[in-house]
Amino acid sequence: MPIQSFIPPQRTLMGPGPSDVSPRVLSALARPTVGHLDPTFIGMMDEVKLLLQYAFQTKNTYTMAISAPGSAGMEACFVNLITPNDTVVVCRNGVFGARMIENVQRIGAKVVVVDGTWGRAVDPQALEDTLKQTPQAKFVAFVHAETSTGALSDAKVLCEIARQYNCLTIVDAVTSLGGVELKVDDWGIDAVYSGSQKCLSCVPGISPVSFSEQAAAVIKNRATPVQSWFLDQSLVMEYWSGQGKRSYHHTAPVNSLYALHESLLILQNEGLENSWARHKNQHDKLATGLQALGLDFIVPENERLPQLNAVYIPKGIDDVQVRQFLLNEYNLEIGAGLGQFAGNAWRIGLMGYAARNENVLLCLAALKEALAQ
Amino acid sequence: MPIQSFIPPQRTLMGPGPSDVSPRVLSALARPTVGHLDPTFIGMMDEVKLLLQYAFQTKNTYTMAISAPGSAGMEACFVNLITPNDTVVVCRNGVFGARMIENVQRIGAKVVVVDGTWGRAVDPQALEDTLKQTPQAKFVAFVHAETSTGALSDAKVLCEIARQYNCLTIVDAVTSLGGVELKVDDWGIDAVYSGSQKCLSCVPGISPVSFSEQAAAVIKNRATPVQSWFLDQSLVMEYWSGQGKRSYHHTAPVNSLYALHESLLILQNEGLENSWARHKNQHDKLATGLQALGLDFIVPENERLPQLNAVYIPKGIDDVQVRQFLLNEYNLEIGAGLGQFAGNAWRIGLMGYAARNENVLLCLAALKEALAQ
Repeated sequence: MPIQSFIPPQRTLMGPGPSDVSPRVLSALARPTVGHLDPTFIGMMDEVKLLLQYAFQTKNTYTMAISAPGSAGMEACFVNLITPNDTVVVCRNGVFGARMIENVQRIGAKVVVVDGTWGRAVDPQALEDTLKQTPQAKFVAFVHAETSTGALSDAKVLCEIARQYNCLTIVDAVTSLGGVELKVDDWGIDAVYSGSQKCLSCVPGISPVSFSEQAAAVIKNRATPVQSWFLDQSLVMEYWSGQGKRSYHHTAPVNSLYALHESLLILQNEGLENSWARHKNQHDKLATGLQALGLDFIVPENERLPQLNAVYIPKGIDDVQVRQFLLNEYNLEIGAGLGQFAGNAWRIGLMGYAARNENVLLCLAALKEALAQ
Repeated sequence: MPIQSFIPPQRTLMGPGPSDVSPRVLSALARPTVGHLDPTFIGMMDEVKLLLQYAFQTKNTYTMAISAPGSAGMEACFVNLITPNDTVVVCRNGVFGARMIENVQRIGAKVVVVDGTWGRAVDPQALEDTLKQTPQAKFVAFVHAETSTGALSDAKVLCEIARQYNCLTIVDAVTSLGGVELKVDDWGIDAVYSGSQKCLSCVPGISPVSFSEQAAAVIKNRATPVQSWFLDQSLVMEYWSGQGKRSYHHTAPVNSLYALHESLLILQNEGLENSWARHKNQHDKLATGLQALGLDFIVPENERLPQLNAVYIPKGIDDVQVRQFLLNEYNLEIGAGLGQFAGNAWRIGLMGYAARNENVLLCLAALKEALAQ
């Protein structure tokens, strides 16, 4: 049969991301494409920057969106800041901490790992113990919200410790931005990256990043060029800088940036604190319901991400069968386990536009039916 | 004033890209987001692969779309194939050949440059002369369609020469794909990358790539990991492979891939040869009109890209004023000069959906008015 236009089903996305995209965002996405150097587009990019500064709670000049998914945002932070002579302390308590280690290794820099339990927050004491023994460390990297386990780490405390040992911090905020408290300036985060497709409820493919003045200085004063031309922020900054003429670097993903602009505007209109509270409220309802179904959380209550609920699959229940039932019968997507939890956990997302009463109710009712099959 | 939703103007895009996006593609873009591991999405990715194989005229298994713009597609080809011990011959006859050199240098490999005149095709004899003197060369890289000058090089002949000297070829087909003849298998191209926003008339942000079996073997047999985790094709192939279980690598830009699927389907429905002929026909009309306006082409007739018409700005005419007039009065975007031609040339695109009768007429009439100002 010849290939036809692709008409996707209407899913409810309650996995680890992409999350449900707001209809306002989809509508913005489809607006007519303009040139990436069009004055109207440059004006919109300036607004994206302002909106990102609000979302990240930062005054950092070097706040922008990488033209690729969160994995590229991660890589942008690492390859721009780190050179092969550096030592980087990476906290690993899930898949994305492990990916940070990969990034450091591919730069050829030295990595010192602070290993933690999967499903728990990063232990500040373990970080401090490692830093005491690693005086040559220049950077500390950790994941704020571990998407693979649903654990939330105390970014404020971890950054304080890093600062005491004269380290700059690189923080993965892919799943935290917009969903839980995140204060880049107050907490003294030096480099932070996120994703469009989690609590911003934008389409996947864009990665917001922000660099402190100190981090920007490290990039500017590099003795050797960044190993990636595409992710070289000293070049990208020329395009996003807003100072005088915009230099062409690469063709920006124009329509995806329309969508990011709209999603950030929705967040600003709601208010950050309100968004955090909404995620918490919906999580409380979902958690109560999941526990009533006999499902146990992986993460202890005080370390739990409201926007990503990881629960153990009960004994005797078939992982794939349940997820297929939800998808086929109710167009509802929940996430499989990842890494250590592959096959023995589900990850139920309540991110951005997906964190709504109707989704919680649907998910609990459908899961109840699926478990009774 | 508070930030509002961004409502872009309706432009006619006749610059060097992004080109006019088909309404069918914009409509596909805004369809509801599904998960990147959703079975319906995996099925669509398989179709994207088939459609890309048709567009590239290849049977290569490793044909897929990089989740980022063409610059990242370029980098993906270079960092996956080349290691620091390799010698790469790069033909430079414009900005994008120069960018290839940047890529090789950032890998730490040795680059030997075949310098050519900007605005001319790559000289096959110059490549052969260089290869004779560079027995250690392992790769030859060149730009098929130089977007900075409008010159089309003879990819078939250049690949033949490279093969005679046992070199694999890396070809930039960003602007050529869909607009002029391109036959990856017949011509023996080993690695090719393109962009979504040129003759495919899709939104910017995606880069189709294809690797020959020999190139794929080089990637698989690397002794050291690729310096970029995000662009590591040995990992990305696991997601795009279609063999058994899809492994999660990064979150695919779901909606952008809907758009790419639709744009490739439009190309398949029209037929490649018909698309090439349409670009040529519209170019002939435009060229006749431009010459009647007294505008001279940079590139000699037999080396000209139909889809990118670079002409000298006549003496006494203000570059910026003319482009602003076209944009403000007629919502018409044409491109500025780039590199050596910055300030003294315009680049008029006729790419994909933009290569239509009405656009040629509008452009010529509006330019005539602008030049008479």
